[in-house]
Amino acid sequence: MADFKEYISTLNGLKFDKMYQNDFFLTWEKTDDELRAVWTVADALRNLRERNISTKVFDSGLGISLFRDNSTRTRFSFASACNLLGLEVQDLDEKKSQVAHGETVRETANMISFMADIIGIRDDMYIGKGNAYMHEVADAVEAGHKDGILEQRPTLVNLQCDIDHPTQCMADALHVIHEFGGIEKLKGKKLAMSWAYSPSYGKPLSVPQGVIGLFTRLGIDVVLAHPKGYEVMPDVIEVAKKNAAASGSAFSITNDMKEAFKDADVVYPKSWAPFAAMEKRTKLYGDGDQAGIDALEKELLKQNAEHKDWACTEDMMKLTKGGKALYLHCLPADISGVSCKEGEVDGSVFDRYRTPLYKQASFKPYVIAAMILLERFANPAAVLQKLEKRGQERVFRA
Amino acid sequence: MADFKEYISTLNGLKFDKMYQNDFFLTWEKTDDELRAVWTVADALRNLRERNISTKVFDSGLGISLFRDNSTRTRFSFASACNLLGLEVQDLDEKKSQVAHGETVRETANMISFMADIIGIRDDMYIGKGNAYMHEVADAVEAGHKDGILEQRPTLVNLQCDIDHPTQCMADALHVIHEFGGIEKLKGKKLAMSWAYSPSYGKPLSVPQGVIGLFTRLGIDVVLAHPKGYEVMPDVIEVAKKNAAASGSAFSITNDMKEAFKDADVVYPKSWAPFAAMEKRTKLYGDGDQAGIDALEKELLKQNAEHKDWACTEDMMKLTKGGKALYLHCLPADISGVSCKEGEVDGSVFDRYRTPLYKQASFKPYVIAAMILLERFANPAAVLQKLEKRGQERVFRA
Amino acid sequence: MADFKEYISTLNGLKFDKMYQNDFFLTWEKTDDELRAVWTVADALRNLRERNISTKVFDSGLGISLFRDNSTRTRFSFASACNLLGLEVQDLDEKKSQVAHGETVRETANMISFMADIIGIRDDMYIGKGNAYMHEVADAVEAGHKDGILEQRPTLVNLQCDIDHPTQCMADALHVIHEFGGIEKLKGKKLAMSWAYSPSYGKPLSVPQGVIGLFTRLGIDVVLAHPKGYEVMPDVIEVAKKNAAASGSAFSITNDMKEAFKDADVVYPKSWAPFAAMEKRTKLYGDGDQAGIDALEKELLKQNAEHKDWACTEDMMKLTKGGKALYLHCLPADISGVSCKEGEVDGSVFDRYRTPLYKQASFKPYVIAAMILLERFANPAAVLQKLEKRGQERVFRA
Repeated sequence: MADFKEYISTLNGLKFDKMYQNDFFLTWEKTDDELRAVWTVADALRNLRERNISTKVFDSGLGISLFRDNSTRTRFSFASACNLLGLEVQDLDEKKSQVAHGETVRETANMISFMADIIGIRDDMYIGKGNAYMHEVADAVEAGHKDGILEQRPTLVNLQCDIDHPTQCMADALHVIHEFGGIEKLKGKKLAMSWAYSPSYGKPLSVPQGVIGLFTRLGIDVVLAHPKGYEVMPDVIEVAKKNAAASGSAFSITNDMKEAFKDADVVYPKSWAPFAAMEKRTKLYGDGDQAGIDALEKELLKQNAEHKDWACTEDMMKLTKGGKALYLHCLPADISGVSCKEGEVDGSVFDRYRTPLYKQASFKPYVIAAMILLERFANPAAVLQKLEKRGQERVFRA
Repeated sequence: MADFKEYISTLNGLKFDKMYQNDFFLTWEKTDDELRAVWTVADALRNLRERNISTKVFDSGLGISLFRDNSTRTRFSFASACNLLGLEVQDLDEKKSQVAHGETVRETANMISFMADIIGIRDDMYIGKGNAYMHEVADAVEAGHKDGILEQRPTLVNLQCDIDHPTQCMADALHVIHEFGGIEKLKGKKLAMSWAYSPSYGKPLSVPQGVIGLFTRLGIDVVLAHPKGYEVMPDVIEVAKKNAAASGSAFSITNDMKEAFKDADVVYPKSWAPFAAMEKRTKLYGDGDQAGIDALEKELLKQNAEHKDWACTEDMMKLTKGGKALYLHCLPADISGVSCKEGEVDGSVFDRYRTPLYKQASFKPYVIAAMILLERFANPAAVLQKLEKRGQERVFRA
Repeated sequence: MADFKEYISTLNGLKFDKMYQNDFFLTWEKTDDELRAVWTVADALRNLRERNISTKVFDSGLGISLFRDNSTRTRFSFASACNLLGLEVQDLDEKKSQVAHGETVRETANMISFMADIIGIRDDMYIGKGNAYMHEVADAVEAGHKDGILEQRPTLVNLQCDIDHPTQCMADALHVIHEFGGIEKLKGKKLAMSWAYSPSYGKPLSVPQGVIGLFTRLGIDVVLAHPKGYEVMPDVIEVAKKNAAASGSAFSITNDMKEAFKDADVVYPKSWAPFAAMEKRTKLYGDGDQAGIDALEKELLKQNAEHKDWACTEDMMKLTKGGKALYLHCLPADISGVSCKEGEVDGSVFDRYRTPLYKQASFKPYVIAAMILLERFANPAAVLQKLEKRGQERVFRA
């Protein structure tokens, strides 16, 4: 896309000083320049690594990861990013440490942070909880640093919450930017963020919400498509509307998958659970009402099954721009005839896009590393240049 | 407290050569000079880190951690200490590896130690077992090194046993030393190590025992207070008596919390289980007598509930020197109205001391790192000076 | 055995260029020169470490470990090898990530490999599955690298499959080479790979198979001994026959333990499950037939119990060359009167060989590290020489 000097020059033209010593919660809390800084630093780090130049900026220090769900992709992406920069990952396993809320969060956050430079949290299960929990942790270590308890103020990276999945969506966007040849090429393109049928239920809303909240800022016309009853968080709809207005793009919602796919340049068909149902589930969990949860699950599966026609089939793909829209997915996908009988996408469609899909995922470690670098260093451009000049080999050469 | 040169000068005036290639089991097995060396090295390491100077003394090597209970604080402290010095932590998970006693310990200890420089063990559940197990491991690797199996002799750090909790108590003491402005300022001060009510039962004895075994050596008058029936290990009482006699301080036992708190400069109110009950429980576990264990738990909870007045209330704090004694706790505390209905300490008292409490905890990673440095290096003062001279940045500067 | 210059000179006389960017699955897929290169690099790495010279050839990068069984020894050996070379281990825990076969393997293999230099897999439970699974992973990352998804092509080390246990057997062989004073001294020696009674059942076949497949190449006469019904994989028998023919040694099978032990220089008595039974078990697992599995277990335990006389007793040892054969075991052994009532070996025999047994195990981290070095570097001799010249201290000296 660009060479190293261009990345540095791009960075020098951006304003992102408020990212330093700060957290990354939601993409729409960041300015356009700040997002662009993340992509640019990610590309620059990748460029250095490809040239076998070490990007270790920490000689020691911990990267704390806290996953409230099982995770392979994001866990490995976070571990890769930390390793790339020289931080050692230390997992806080809730089953081992019984993290709770309130005072306990404040205490635990400080206790694990004496030598932590970064904290990555994934907490996407309950509406109104995940993002709030991350803020609790951030506030606790901010106070701990001010009170002289923590020598450094560890900053946070949101590895997926109930509202947004910023490391995923920023990686998705960087992939799209690379595929289309630059941010400036995205103006006027059309992206369909569509619900798709899955035989499982309760998939998080953070990806569709993150996508409509982010891509509307890139000048892309975004269509959100889902069957009636599968609405996402109203607040995020407002975000998407405002972002589209600001960037001069369009944002619309439809209950017709075909309409969304028509002439789309990018499609992102993916299952999610209705926001209202997730709110209900959160309440049932809070009440410890297992019978209620079981009943809700049954109901949701039944509701899903009414929309098996919401699938990214070959016929659907034909509707897209030249029949060749870029197909995106955060993976793993429910592939019809492969991982399930009927699912989100046809096996032949998925297969054709396997390489770009895996490339899409490959941006995540670099996006996370870029967020860390921007949060921890006042002058990332100078850091990158000094790394290049130092020229320490990542892999020994003889 | 002091600057880096003073730490070096202090170290040069102490005799601690026997710590090299040796383990750290109990504070009372160490000389006064040796303990002072730990505190001094801990302060020096912190000083270097605060100046962004790397303290990595290992280029590679493993720090093995073996936790027989769940743990967040100590686990992260050990991981932080290892990372600070350049060792990578490798957890030996008993559920994965079925560690047992006897020949198996000898074998496992050698099998995990081929590239280990340090082994940290927490094993505090059963009376007569934890410390003994640590010695088994130490003896095994000592023999393995002598027999030419292990290139290096990994040394041990006791991360809590049935007798002592040396990394906790050494951190507690370093906090007190800092708060009062130096070891020499502690002479004649009064510390109350007091039992306090908790709605849970079976908390380890290692902290109260460690505290009375250590603080009596600092010239501090130590009062151990608990309801009748909550006696600690008789052996440790003897240790405390001897230490007090040797340091010219006083050690006494009372069944009156008020008496202990009266004019105290430092208070450490904390729940623990009676030693006799823990011995009984150990036997019941050994016999696999679950009914007996359940009955004992019920009995102990009932016994605890008779002493709900043993709490660190605002009124109790008023009895202390100027109403302003330094409040200590190893955390987490059972806070009345916060983490439980009635517990060890009033919410308002805990809240007032939150910052010093968290600072108290912040010394633990450095205390552990100091123990490691003293065990692994013949001349720690020279190592510290060379680290300062090398001046490698912990965090890259640009 | 030799000094560092001799290792370099040995390496320079060997042809092993095909190991670069390649995997290590089975020893019999490697040439004699390639195996010799592994042992030589292992010795050279150990030599450097013993001289406190860092062997870190990676500044950053991940070593992925995937264990489908519990494991302490192999897990720590892999972690030690990675640490020795500068890679950080990241465990892929199947319980956390639900690894499966087919498309899922392809996807997961790529998702975890963006910054992986090496992947170590242990999968020995089911006949026809473990080795096949490793090839699936290797093919997936090979394709991922070719398709431009992965910047580097991570290579594999087989940490035990259903067919071979190459890191174990290569460590065993290096131990034997050291004990006898060189590969050239092994010509005409006799090794007995013998079944032995164990009160447990279903122990993997990979060790006996690996041993007869490897030691027959060293000019050693290998006798495989087992009761009727305890046959190993027929394919591996063919491998052993061919290897013996090629190296000018003998390979034979007997149902008489005494015949095998008679005048043996090396004995390896160890329990395993019959190949036919393991095939049957694999099928039962595939069918989800728990009743069938339970019945099979019962039957196998009964069958085992008929052969309690297959034990490495003092009397059996007296039959060996001068009564002093080198006793090998991959550990842990079932020791009569120690870890079980009746087992594979007498307590007194095991005790006499404890030090050499533990030394045998000590070669494994170095063997794994050597495999990694040979897979990742085109010119390992130059790398080793440059490491020596760099002379970076593993442990700081002051």
